[in-house]
Amino acid sequence: MGRKLLIGVDLGGTSLLTVVTTPKGKILGRKKVKTRPEEGANAVLGRIVDTINGAVADAGVKLKDVRAIGVGFPGPLDPQTGIVFHAPNLGPTWNNLPLADYLTEHLGLPTYLGNDVNVGAVGEHALGAGRGVRNMVSLFVGTGIGGGLILNGKLYLGARNTAGEPGHMVVLADGPLCGCGKRGCVEALASRTAIERDIRAGLEAGRESLLPQIWAEMGRNDLSSSILAAALERGDPLVSEVMRNAQYYMGLLVANIVNLIEPEAIVFGGGLVDQLGDRYLDPVRETAEQYYLNQQDKDKIRIVAGALKDYAGVLGAAIMANQAWKRDHS
Amino acid sequence: MGRKLLIGVDLGGTSLLTVVTTPKGKILGRKKVKTRPEEGANAVLGRIVDTINGAVADAGVKLKDVRAIGVGFPGPLDPQTGIVFHAPNLGPTWNNLPLADYLTEHLGLPTYLGNDVNVGAVGEHALGAGRGVRNMVSLFVGTGIGGGLILNGKLYLGARNTAGEPGHMVVLADGPLCGCGKRGCVEALASRTAIERDIRAGLEAGRESLLPQIWAEMGRNDLSSSILAAALERGDPLVSEVMRNAQYYMGLLVANIVNLIEPEAIVFGGGLVDQLGDRYLDPVRETAEQYYLNQQDKDKIRIVAGALKDYAGVLGAAIMANQAWKRDHS
Repeated sequence: MGRKLLIGVDLGGTSLLTVVTTPKGKILGRKKVKTRPEEGANAVLGRIVDTINGAVADAGVKLKDVRAIGVGFPGPLDPQTGIVFHAPNLGPTWNNLPLADYLTEHLGLPTYLGNDVNVGAVGEHALGAGRGVRNMVSLFVGTGIGGGLILNGKLYLGARNTAGEPGHMVVLADGPLCGCGKRGCVEALASRTAIERDIRAGLEAGRESLLPQIWAEMGRNDLSSSILAAALERGDPLVSEVMRNAQYYMGLLVANIVNLIEPEAIVFGGGLVDQLGDRYLDPVRETAEQYYLNQQDKDKIRIVAGALKDYAGVLGAAIMANQAWKRDHS
Repeated sequence: MGRKLLIGVDLGGTSLLTVVTTPKGKILGRKKVKTRPEEGANAVLGRIVDTINGAVADAGVKLKDVRAIGVGFPGPLDPQTGIVFHAPNLGPTWNNLPLADYLTEHLGLPTYLGNDVNVGAVGEHALGAGRGVRNMVSLFVGTGIGGGLILNGKLYLGARNTAGEPGHMVVLADGPLCGCGKRGCVEALASRTAIERDIRAGLEAGRESLLPQIWAEMGRNDLSSSILAAALERGDPLVSEVMRNAQYYMGLLVANIVNLIEPEAIVFGGGLVDQLGDRYLDPVRETAEQYYLNQQDKDKIRIVAGALKDYAGVLGAAIMANQAWKRDHS
C-alpha cells in the first residue's frame, strides 16, 4: 500500500475512538473503548496504543501501511511540539505531557495533535457539511460551547494556538455567571449547562412542566438530549421557553461571527443538534439572519448540522495528520 | 524609475487625499482637496483624477513612473471587478459605479479598490502599529465602528467581501437601538454617536457637567474629540461616566474578537483614539484582558493606537495596489 493510510484518534473524557482510514475518509477499521481517565495518563496512553493496534487489526492492515497518526485532544496544546498543556476532563496527570513523542516512540509513526473541536472542524470541512467552502466556523454545543475556524481553506489557530473560543464571546454584558468566571458569555446562556440550569430553576420555582411525568414514564430524571426532545415534542412550556432563549442567544453568537468573519458555513455539532436537527437550528437561523449587517449574507451563508456526527473528530484528526505529513515532506 | 511608484487615494465623505509613495511607504508627493460629494459622482471622479495628477506633479515624477493606483472607498465594493456598490456618505450617484475601470481609462494605470477601513488595516499592518504580526484586527472608532482583518499576513475579506463589521457584534442583547435597526450592537454602545447620545441625554436630564462652561469658553457647542478631551482633563463627571461605559463595551468587543480569532495585535484608529491615546485605551485594555479566556493572551496580544493616523488609508491603498499588481503579474 506504500504508507498511504491514516490513523485518527479521538480522545474524550468518556470514550476513546480510533480509526484507520484512507486519505479520502473511507474507514477501514475501528476500535472504541472507555477512556477511564481516573486511572491516570499512563494507563490511558497504553489504551491509545492498544486501540491503534486494534483498529489496524480490524482493518486487516499493518502499521507499515500507515503514514501518520492524528490525535484530537480535549484541551490546549502546542501543535508544533506535540505537547499537551492540560485537559480539564482528563485530570492533572496530563499536564505538559509530550503526547506526540510518546506515540511516535511506541508505534514508529509521525504523530500530529489538534484540539478536539479543531480537528472536528477539519473533518467537517474536508468530508462533511463544510465541504468545498473556503471559510467555515464549527460550533460544538455541549456542556460548554467550543469552536473551530477554517479560514482560507486551512485550520486557523491564532497567536497562541488557542483561537476559536466562541463560547466565551459576551452577548449579554453583565449577564449570568459563566464557568470561566466572567458574566454574559454565550456559554452561560446557550450551552447545555445553561439550559439545564434554567430548566431546573424553573422546576424549583414551580413552573408548569411535563418533565416530572416524562421522567416517571422513562424511569430517570436527567436532561439528556432525548429527554429534552421528548419534552419539546409534547409542547412542554418550560423546556420550550428555555430552549427558545438559548437558541436566541446562539443566534446572536452566529450573527456576531458572521458580522466579523463572514464564513460561507457555520457547522453545528453536539448531542443537542444531533438529536433535534432543524428544530434546534431553525430558531437559531431566524435570529442570526435578522442580525446580519449585510442582509445578502442570508443567501450566501449556510447554518447547518455537521454530517459526520461522532466521526468528525477521528476523521478530522486523520485528515489533519495527512496535511501535516505532506507539509513536512514537501 | 521603471514603474515602481504607487498612488494611494483615500476617498472620504469630507476630504480626498492622494499620495505618490514608494513601495516602502516613503511619501514623495501629496494632494488633498475637499470631496464635495453633493456635486455628484462625475465631479468627484474628476477631482480624483486631478489629485492624482497633482500628487504626481508634487512628487516631481511622471505617471509612467507609477505601477498602480489603490483606492480606499467608503463603502462596500467588489475588489475583483473594481465596481463600488454604494456609499452612504457619498450619495446615490455612486451606486454600482465601475470606479477602477474609470481611473484605468483616464490614467492608463491598473487600479485596485479596497474598503476604506480595510486599506487602513493594510497600511497599519505593512507600515504602522501592526508591523511584523501575522494576525491583526483594526478597529476604527468614528460615528460608526469599522474594522479590518489581517489573517495569516493577508487582508481577509470573507464570503462576500464584507467581513470585518465588528461594530455590529452584539455585546448587550436587547440593548440600545443601533443605526442598523438592531439592538445591542457595540456601535450603539461605544461609537462617537453613542457617546454623544448619552452625553446629550445626560445634559438634558440635568446631570452635572462642565460642558456648558467649556462650550462658553471655546465659543462652540459640539462634542468633538478635543472638547471631550478637555472635559475629561477637567474631570467632568458626566463625560467621564459616559466614556467609561463606552470603553467598557469596547473592551468586551476586543475580548470577543480575541476569544474568537486571537490576533497578535488590535490596532485602534479614529479621532477619539488619536486625541486621547492611552487615556482612551487603558480602560479598554483593562476590560478586554479581564475577559480573555486564555489569560496568557495578555502577554501576547497588543492593544495599541495606529501609528499612521490620517495616512493609514492612502498608504494602505498603495500597498494593497502593489500586492494586487504583483499577484496579477506573477
